[in-house]
Amino acid sequence: MPRINNVLETALYVKDRVRSQSFYETVLGFRVLLDDGNRLTGMAVADTNQVLLLFDEGASTAGEKTSGGFIPPHDGHGPLHLAFAIDTASRADWTAHLQANGVAVESEVHPPLGGTSIYFRDPDDNLIELASPGIWETY
Amino acid sequence: MPRINNVLETALYVKDRVRSQSFYETVLGFRVLLDDGNRLTGMAVADTNQVLLLFDEGASTAGEKTSGGFIPPHDGHGPLHLAFAIDTASRADWTAHLQANGVAVESEVHPPLGGTSIYFRDPDDNLIELASPGIWETY
Repeated sequence: MPRINNVLETALYVKDRVRSQSFYETVLGFRVLLDDGNRLTGMAVADTNQVLLLFDEGASTAGEKTSGGFIPPHDGHGPLHLAFAIDTASRADWTAHLQANGVAVESEVHPPLGGTSIYFRDPDDNLIELASPGIWETY
Repeated sequence: MPRINNVLETALYVKDRVRSQSFYETVLGFRVLLDDGNRLTGMAVADTNQVLLLFDEGASTAGEKTSGGFIPPHDGHGPLHLAFAIDTASRADWTAHLQANGVAVESEVHPPLGGTSIYFRDPDDNLIELASPGIWETY
């Protein structure tokens, strides 16, 4: 069968795109690739080819006609969950960085296989995890 | 500031985990890394370190006590949206593979920057996209 290369886009549905964009820029270091001035901000996940999509809640329930074709309807309500990979060596720096930005660490988990997961909330209460290697057999 | 390496986990909230697992195995070629026998199936996204989490809808609203610590509450309702990266050369094979598995292509979009996106639904009506390179300045 044909092959998937990687996760390309993952989407959150937010109440205030400006607020969310600022959070993901400042706290996670992502940069804006696209602001369509309407319903969507697309942000580059660090230096990867991956994109975090921030949609206005409820704005995509009828889909979107574009010059290139029709993007079908979708929408979501959370609090959703996303995890990002970090180096083990950066864990203390991440904890300090979150604290410096007024982001409370809600929990720290040491999964049975290894690694550590730090959990906190984004402005819409989505549960964000920073995970160091070891938590999965593949990571 | 410290660095994010990549998206590690993205989560969907499903009505029937067995059904969803079968879909993602058969249609997208993912494999099960974990079935906790309770609320979660974790699937490896092809040959990456990335994991698709399939949670039973509503089963994580009180969080989860584990031997390694407390995983805070989260939950979601869709139809959510996820995109996966595919090679341009595999597009025709993907279309044939979807058809062979009875998965209807809902739309095909040619974004202004380039590339092509194929859209279809998973068993919970989540909007899944297979995107070939060119649709973002980073991809």
